[in-house]
Amino acid sequence: MKLNIAVLPGDGIGPEVTQQAIKVLKAVALEFDHTFNFKEALVGAIAIEETGNPLPDETIKLCKASNAILFGAIGDPKFDNDPSAKVRPEQGLLRLRKEFGMFANIRPIKAYEKLLDKSPLKEAIIKGTDICIYRELTGGIYFGEKSLNEEKTIASDLCQYSKEEIERVAHLAFKAAQSRKKKVTLVDKANVLETSRLWRKVVTEIAKDYPDVSLDFLFVDNAAMQLILNPKQFDVILTENMFGDILSDEASVIGGSIGLLASASIGGKVGMFEPIHGSFPQAKGKGIANPIASILSAAMLLEHFGLHKEARRIQQAVEKSLELEITTSDISTKNSGVSTNRVGDFIEDFI
Amino acid sequence: MKLNIAVLPGDGIGPEVTQQAIKVLKAVALEFDHTFNFKEALVGAIAIEETGNPLPDETIKLCKASNAILFGAIGDPKFDNDPSAKVRPEQGLLRLRKEFGMFANIRPIKAYEKLLDKSPLKEAIIKGTDICIYRELTGGIYFGEKSLNEEKTIASDLCQYSKEEIERVAHLAFKAAQSRKKKVTLVDKANVLETSRLWRKVVTEIAKDYPDVSLDFLFVDNAAMQLILNPKQFDVILTENMFGDILSDEASVIGGSIGLLASASIGGKVGMFEPIHGSFPQAKGKGIANPIASILSAAMLLEHFGLHKEARRIQQAVEKSLELEITTSDISTKNSGVSTNRVGDFIEDFI
Ligand SMILES: CC(C)[C@H](C(=O)O)[C@@H](O)C(=O)O
Ligand SMILES: CC(C)[C@H](C(=O)O)[C@@H](O)C(=O)O
Repeated sequence: MKLNIAVLPGDGIGPEVTQQAIKVLKAVALEFDHTFNFKEALVGAIAIEETGNPLPDETIKLCKASNAILFGAIGDPKFDNDPSAKVRPEQGLLRLRKEFGMFANIRPIKAYEKLLDKSPLKEAIIKGTDICIYRELTGGIYFGEKSLNEEKTIASDLCQYSKEEIERVAHLAFKAAQSRKKKVTLVDKANVLETSRLWRKVVTEIAKDYPDVSLDFLFVDNAAMQLILNPKQFDVILTENMFGDILSDEASVIGGSIGLLASASIGGKVGMFEPIHGSFPQAKGKGIANPIASILSAAMLLEHFGLHKEARRIQQAVEKSLELEITTSDISTKNSGVSTNRVGDFIEDFI
Repeated sequence: MKLNIAVLPGDGIGPEVTQQAIKVLKAVALEFDHTFNFKEALVGAIAIEETGNPLPDETIKLCKASNAILFGAIGDPKFDNDPSAKVRPEQGLLRLRKEFGMFANIRPIKAYEKLLDKSPLKEAIIKGTDICIYRELTGGIYFGEKSLNEEKTIASDLCQYSKEEIERVAHLAFKAAQSRKKKVTLVDKANVLETSRLWRKVVTEIAKDYPDVSLDFLFVDNAAMQLILNPKQFDVILTENMFGDILSDEASVIGGSIGLLASASIGGKVGMFEPIHGSFPQAKGKGIANPIASILSAAMLLEHFGLHKEARRIQQAVEKSLELEITTSDISTKNSGVSTNRVGDFIEDFI
């Protein structure tokens, strides 16, 4: 297979971890006889610095001409402390999602046997956990109308959802559940929000198309609690944009390190694959960033194009690296861990 | 001191736990020579059944004539499964908050030594945790305009905040921090939401009035993760309505049981004191509900009126009951636990 892959390394540790994912994808291409072409473009704070725009036209053009996007991370503390800045790195990410219609963000969360003791949660609680979160990604309060009055004393954000927006991501979640434990949990706040009531109604309708999948409901406050009390109860979690943002970061504690979690943002013509950890500016350039999330995102990319064998090989390589403790310091027990590059090399060699 | 206390037991286990709190307050009145008068009124599902209204005028009248409200719980699964019902129990609670201007919801979260092993989190993570959440309670997406088009295909909820709404709850949070560990963490999503950017701006201004208190910021997704990774880093958490709802339920896992967590909703002329657990309909009438959250809410009520000694006595009694394991089954280790009533009796006797 021939794939043109746009690489958007972004800020902080983005470039260094993405480098490892590329290395691994190249090894896969060699081993399985594919052609993967990589082209880089700017996004985020670095794009603002160089062009004044967090998502330059060049970048959009490259992504449009590609089959998939491999994304690093964005964000810089310099902008966080000035939330009223007109141009912010996050806008690049949000516009990318919207522009390319990536309405579904998929985040698998698994408790790796080898890392059970890394979690702040007790082993007995997390052992065996295998959750997949389907977060709606181009609607809701992220993209609704915003306002700030002239005196800067009243602000608002509109959370809006249409039936179609709910349906398309819901179908993906139910389909995923069919090849998993056949359970979808819709997380909402239907006792308060009108949009949540629409979600409940639409999703209940759609569930009828999937008689082999069971559907249950949880209010978001309760879900935030249940994720910690008993994560094993979940299979596929389906939820709206803001709730998905919160719950998926929260759920990352199950895996022992956010440095392990990959994600796919799909729905439009071009899918995007990225680690869920952010730019982690404190670690930038130190060679201590965990590249596994980025490497597993590359595996999700292959999965997306039906290259299951190839994706499986990457996952096996990652599991082997965990088993042999060829890992960065965030998840290493015995020693201070090895470098970002060393983890990438090992996984490359294994393939 | 003479206090008229409106008692709103509500649904599910509400009545049985509230009964214990009343018992304890009566013991305090006797011991410390106060006069507490209790009058009951309807709220929630039971109020809908008896009057068609989740917050009958009678109830409002009683509350207006009282110094404080002791609240049980509301909610009935029969309504949850029908989110499109025109009348729902939650409306009673929301209208009560709005009607009486309870703009600040205060939820203390503590890891009790005796219960460290009850939490799904590891002891080393939670030991020593002592957090107080200040949640804005009468603004944001809970009370903004809602809409549903005629075809029932597009729904919306408006999240709105004014400078004043932010200021008044922020002042309370900073004041609380002054008599604690002198740290306020504002949780928001300023990289996406206009309302969050207003929160950050207004709270940053207010912080100048409290030079002895440090202020830091956390995005809500990160906060949901940090609460589990390292809860000890927090002192006072200040946040808007929806985020506060999610984070405070999530944080309840630290205490080992949601059956321990009390809350106060204050700001207007009449404050309301309630356990944060819900109506827990499955446990109703079985005598297994943990009354401690309701009893500690009664202590918060006394605290609110400056009756510190009295509040302290209740807290001591609760700690003693934990120490001696005179507790309900949710937190009991040795045995199957004692009844709701028995826990109340012990605490009453201790006082
Ligand atoms: C950076 C930010 C805008 C983004 C989001 O909130 O969606 C991030 O937290 C994520 O989850 O990908
Ligand atoms: C019952 C519900 C409306 C309420 C809320 O969301 O505020 C509850 O979850 C709470 O936190 O008190």
